[in-house]
Amino acid sequence: MRLSVKSLMNGKILAGAAVALAVGLTAVGASAQQQKPEDVLKMRQGLMQAVKVQFGAIGAFAQGKGDLPTDAAQRAENLVALARISPIAWSKGGENIKGSETKAAAFTSADFTKGWENMAEEAAKLAEAAKGGNADAIKAAAAGLGKTCKGCHENFKE
Amino acid sequence: MRLSVKSLMNGKILAGAAVALAVGLTAVGASAQQQKPEDVLKMRQGLMQAVKVQFGAIGAFAQGKGDLPTDAAQRAENLVALARISPIAWSKGGENIKGSETKAAAFTSADFTKGWENMAEEAAKLAEAAKGGNADAIKAAAAGLGKTCKGCHENFKE
Repeated sequence: MRLSVKSLMNGKILAGAAVALAVGLTAVGASAQQQKPEDVLKMRQGLMQAVKVQFGAIGAFAQGKGDLPTDAAQRAENLVALARISPIAWSKGGENIKGSETKAAAFTSADFTKGWENMAEEAAKLAEAAKGGNADAIKAAAAGLGKTCKGCHENFKE
Repeated sequence: MRLSVKSLMNGKILAGAAVALAVGLTAVGASAQQQKPEDVLKMRQGLMQAVKVQFGAIGAFAQGKGDLPTDAAQRAENLVALARISPIAWSKGGENIKGSETKAAAFTSADFTKGWENMAEEAAKLAEAAKGGNADAIKAAAAGLGKTCKGCHENFKE
């Protein structure tokens, strides 16, 4: 997904933000080696907890287990930003951190990097669906986003 | 700082994103009561660790203790997003979490909320300065951002 300036002007500013955030994210400076392993672990857990908190009620709604949160679009937009930021906690050298559930394969796999991009794209679709207000569309988009979580967890989480 | 669509088209997409992210952030659904205190704590620590990691080398540069990281603008843009997302970890009901260093006053103070907005604004200025490439301007902007960290820490951190 790459949005034009025109689409930015169409109220898709946040999805545009995803694109902007994406630029250069492969070049995040501080490598994991320069940080304490326990601090890297805190980042991973904290960022994923934030993802869980933002997606939780929407996922429950999609599964027929609750009402749609009134701030679903904002939550989805936060998920776009979280998808763009999270790779900083999984930079090179972050293998074998005690207590981490990330498999070493994540640090060499293009699928892992692509997984964050997929997450951002699906979260942006969810934001659009939430703004539209159609329950079925929101459920479909939430399922799409959920699949990106599950995909990476299956491949790269112990 | 409020950016127009025109300024968005001027390459200030991320700063615009900050504005977009700001919309509705006061209405983030899941209250701290609905989450385990230890999970809220993980979010706080993880998000602040991410801030530290993104700002670290820039702050060192501003203090004459290192080179400017080549990805300074991206780091600053990540800091804008982190400033916008972080309030989800300090929602109502999050007082008195064991191990947290946040004073109870933070949960009733408008200055705490405003602190995140200030951080986002100063981080956006830093991103602009980093894109401009003038060392003195970058140092000044980094100092401005550092002040917003210090301001909230002094008032609301044990």
